[in-house]
Amino acid sequence: MADPKLIIVGSVGIDHIETPDVHRPNLLGGSASYACAAASFHAPVGMVGVVGTDFPEEHTDTFKHFDINLEGLQVEEGQTFAWHGKYHENMDHRDTLQTVLGVFEHFNPTLPDNYKDVDYLFLGNIHPALQLRVLEQVNSPKFILIDTMDLWINIARDELTEVFKKVHMLTVNETEAQLYTGKYNLVEAARELQKLGPQYVLIKRGGSGCMLFPQEGQRCVLPAYPVDHVEDPTGAGDTFAGGLMGALAENDDISDEGLRRALVRGTTIASFGVQSFSLEKLRDLTRSDLDARAADLAGMVKLPGTI
Amino acid sequence: MADPKLIIVGSVGIDHIETPDVHRPNLLGGSASYACAAASFHAPVGMVGVVGTDFPEEHTDTFKHFDINLEGLQVEEGQTFAWHGKYHENMDHRDTLQTVLGVFEHFNPTLPDNYKDVDYLFLGNIHPALQLRVLEQVNSPKFILIDTMDLWINIARDELTEVFKKVHMLTVNETEAQLYTGKYNLVEAARELQKLGPQYVLIKRGGSGCMLFPQEGQRCVLPAYPVDHVEDPTGAGDTFAGGLMGALAENDDISDEGLRRALVRGTTIASFGVQSFSLEKLRDLTRSDLDARAADLAGMVKLPGTI
Repeated sequence: MADPKLIIVGSVGIDHIETPDVHRPNLLGGSASYACAAASFHAPVGMVGVVGTDFPEEHTDTFKHFDINLEGLQVEEGQTFAWHGKYHENMDHRDTLQTVLGVFEHFNPTLPDNYKDVDYLFLGNIHPALQLRVLEQVNSPKFILIDTMDLWINIARDELTEVFKKVHMLTVNETEAQLYTGKYNLVEAARELQKLGPQYVLIKRGGSGCMLFPQEGQRCVLPAYPVDHVEDPTGAGDTFAGGLMGALAENDDISDEGLRRALVRGTTIASFGVQSFSLEKLRDLTRSDLDARAADLAGMVKLPGTI
Repeated sequence: MADPKLIIVGSVGIDHIETPDVHRPNLLGGSASYACAAASFHAPVGMVGVVGTDFPEEHTDTFKHFDINLEGLQVEEGQTFAWHGKYHENMDHRDTLQTVLGVFEHFNPTLPDNYKDVDYLFLGNIHPALQLRVLEQVNSPKFILIDTMDLWINIARDELTEVFKKVHMLTVNETEAQLYTGKYNLVEAARELQKLGPQYVLIKRGGSGCMLFPQEGQRCVLPAYPVDHVEDPTGAGDTFAGGLMGALAENDDISDEGLRRALVRGTTIASFGVQSFSLEKLRDLTRSDLDARAADLAGMVKLPGTI
């Protein structure tokens, strides 16, 4: 197994998901699972996370299918993190019915030595104190992206703000941006977040695409790829971020052009991800499927040279 | 006054608007007012509508400021159409507090002779039976766009469907597309609408941009221009459509490229429109303001040649 060019830290868990159409228990879930699978289409990726001794072998086999480096995946005595969620009509909103932290409660991310010199690091959604511990273990990566969630904004705002200061890009969804800044308007919210230090603020808007605000240079706005059926939006943001970081690592290009290319790649793979539960669609996907849809998306937003 | 290259049919009215911040009575409103003002930056435009004898002279002066041809604007004994609306926190939703139809109740659109050979026609949001009457008076325009609203989908669906069959492009917002088709997914909804006949289905998504579905060729998705303050979203869809049709008429180009250019122009002027109440921002706007923002938007969505 090759040393990874990209490290992704996050949760690994078992999802029980109810949609208006169907109830699917015991799915492979977690931010690191989605993000690593997405990144794996672009670059060798290493996972940092924890599972319990109950973690099903078939899920480990799925990680192996994507050729994810698992040297950073700890196995601890106890139960794997589990989440039970229920989507409302139209999949716009969801309720968490149950969360079992299990071994995730005492997770202490520890990087194998061959992860520490990595150039690309994605700090997926975990407690910001743990994200800080990961940052202490790496030797100045070229590009660090952080994701988070409303829970940490509410209960660990100071530690989260510390992480924001130490990364190149932070990504939040609309409601997280609004919650953290108190600004409803996303341009205003992004401006507030930029004051904290990160070179780039990336706001995820689900089916409405994303907006990238750099400290310098021109903003980028990219629509989502329009899909005709959303089966399960769980993990879409993680898949997006994983695809984005995978593309950055693949091209080793963090220029404005490189970032736009990576946004297209993240958007593309996220649009496949929501077309199935868990990683089911991604398992069947080929690189040429991705290339074709990325080209289609680029064609959809292409404008004539003169406006 | 030059003969118009573009005719716009719609409501002309007095708006009383409440937002969380402010209450503004006696504003110039109506779909034709917004759309004609937006179009006027691009091409000579003629208005078809009706006002009462109480219509304030300052509002007629505003039309003259935009150099709108008013030969098709009827003045009838009675009260001008009036709408009183209240926006909720965050401007996402609004309630209609009062609607006074006034002279609009018996509106019978009549086109002056010099309007009948026009190449570009925008049937703004009025009763579909009236839209059909307009269609009977024109001599095969090159490009007809129709807009509508939930009310007509609910109470005049058959007549509306008749109009859909006779136009080149229909534009609806998300909820109207869902209401008419019963499909929540916008790709599915657009597919249903396409079956009715129009060459293009254009779905407006407000701050999430727009999606253009052609019968043939590639779809286009364009994000909204991100503005840092929305003062009043009233009329944004009409401003968008007016700018779009104005640009089509200006360039006399309904090719795929011409349509994409026009979408950028509609998006651009709509983004200015929401930054003030009524037509206040548009009054101060210059063509070079529009050109600069259109170029900025094009830059925001520009992708590298290879993805």
